[in-house]
Amino acid sequence: MNEIHLFAPATVANVSCGFDVLGFALDSVGDWMTIRRNNVGELRITKITGQSLPMEILKNVSGVSALALLKAYGGEQGFDIEIEKNIKPGSGIGSSAASSAGAVFGINELLGKPFSKEELVGFAMKGEALAGGTEHADNVTPCIFGGFTLIQSCQPLRVVSLPSPEELYAVVLHPQIEVKTSDARAILKTHVLLKKAVRQSGYLGGFVSGLFMNDYNLIADSLKDEIVEPARSMLIPLFDEVKLAALENGALGCGISGSGPSIFALNRGEKIAGQVAEAMRKVYQKSQIPFDVHLSKVNPQGIKVD
Amino acid sequence: MNEIHLFAPATVANVSCGFDVLGFALDSVGDWMTIRRNNVGELRITKITGQSLPMEILKNVSGVSALALLKAYGGEQGFDIEIEKNIKPGSGIGSSAASSAGAVFGINELLGKPFSKEELVGFAMKGEALAGGTEHADNVTPCIFGGFTLIQSCQPLRVVSLPSPEELYAVVLHPQIEVKTSDARAILKTHVLLKKAVRQSGYLGGFVSGLFMNDYNLIADSLKDEIVEPARSMLIPLFDEVKLAALENGALGCGISGSGPSIFALNRGEKIAGQVAEAMRKVYQKSQIPFDVHLSKVNPQGIKVD
Repeated sequence: MNEIHLFAPATVANVSCGFDVLGFALDSVGDWMTIRRNNVGELRITKITGQSLPMEILKNVSGVSALALLKAYGGEQGFDIEIEKNIKPGSGIGSSAASSAGAVFGINELLGKPFSKEELVGFAMKGEALAGGTEHADNVTPCIFGGFTLIQSCQPLRVVSLPSPEELYAVVLHPQIEVKTSDARAILKTHVLLKKAVRQSGYLGGFVSGLFMNDYNLIADSLKDEIVEPARSMLIPLFDEVKLAALENGALGCGISGSGPSIFALNRGEKIAGQVAEAMRKVYQKSQIPFDVHLSKVNPQGIKVD
Repeated sequence: MNEIHLFAPATVANVSCGFDVLGFALDSVGDWMTIRRNNVGELRITKITGQSLPMEILKNVSGVSALALLKAYGGEQGFDIEIEKNIKPGSGIGSSAASSAGAVFGINELLGKPFSKEELVGFAMKGEALAGGTEHADNVTPCIFGGFTLIQSCQPLRVVSLPSPEELYAVVLHPQIEVKTSDARAILKTHVLLKKAVRQSGYLGGFVSGLFMNDYNLIADSLKDEIVEPARSMLIPLFDEVKLAALENGALGCGISGSGPSIFALNRGEKIAGQVAEAMRKVYQKSQIPFDVHLSKVNPQGIKVD
């Protein structure tokens, strides 16, 4: 195999109750990438459509991630990467993660899968560091593994693939404003009340259990964030109104996707998801802020090879 | 039915990774209680053997718990409670919880089960408040529900019954020293580093997943406590030595049971549990402190009616 064409999905990190440990992959939103071996023995980004992004290897997250993999693999391998970029950078649904994960996943396939999925996450985190200043795994993990993922441990990296109940549909509203990941980090306090951390751990445990038990009520009751959302939601115009509209229209839960500005809702069934999407849209239509709305099943497999 | 004879098990709260939210029930350690209707229309504690404890209703945790239930039930019901107290008070394996939970469970059975298990936990928490100063549910919940339990939320109380992998055996070493629950609480800081809370939530999520997936490696990797154990273990002589001995002899994990002083270890299979018990015992034999060691399967059903 000398060429691979793949879909790298957008992802929602944190998922309200699992700050920095939980994430899931979307099914109908993502980037397309083509990766092929070249004869020049070096890594190149040969084409980017959809967004204006640097094509220099060391300035592009997919280049940095791919280089990390090739360094670990050794030898003189050359690849060309083409990216059809559909996920807007800075949207909070794992734009850089999709490019990073897609690049390392694709090259790994062409090399005959020398690396495990967890190792691929490690390479893709190098791209995340270029984009956000820190090596974080919350988006690249669900992008590569699919479905819901839990980062049980960062060092060493240990990922748990959680079940994805069949009827879960996500809605994502992306307000086209800029929230820098670094600002979203800075707004958080370094310490949290132990009592709150305990309550939050009950929600995380409940959510994980709800996924295993296919218990939508338990999932709904557990989609809560008492620690991060109260601070970060201030950076997102109309957050409270959007959330209220989503919940009033039947969403299981609604919160900030990653570090924002996107707002996600999880819903049982496509019909309710449609109503929730419409209700969230209506709130933003009253504002002057341009926005997109995505409706998608949870993607159980992560990156898909075409 | 006018009389019931039941076994109320000892319990291990916190279980390293789930401070204030996780617990499990033991199978071979616990109190026996007999509860029977009387004709005098009032609640009485008529006999306590095994330990010296107050028989006045308002000074005894089972009395206080039973009264809370009877108040909610209404009417003029009278019951006599007899307790064969095998769990030593202050041991850290839910001594007061067993008496509280046993009393309300037994009376509920005799009344024809008007209350749910979650409601029974609420009544038994009144007894816990008498014993420890706060209404906490971490021991009464596994005592009543059995197996591993997660307190998803305290208000309203929502309990999740988690699966108990077949081969799990617990070892509990009880050093006969006094660690007051109030002291064990006071030693904890009110705030915790957000980073630590995140890491700890990964372990909790991993442990819950491990129970559902029957994955003993994941369970072992998740039995970690970076927040409470470093502080509380200072109150327990030889804790580090006991833990090291347990892990070196094959325990999946080892930590403080509830607020101590008991030390628990979880193990895969009875044989390893026996070796771990022996290793833990050896450490304490070198000290001047009297101690007990219990070895028990995880009890999947909680309170058992004889």
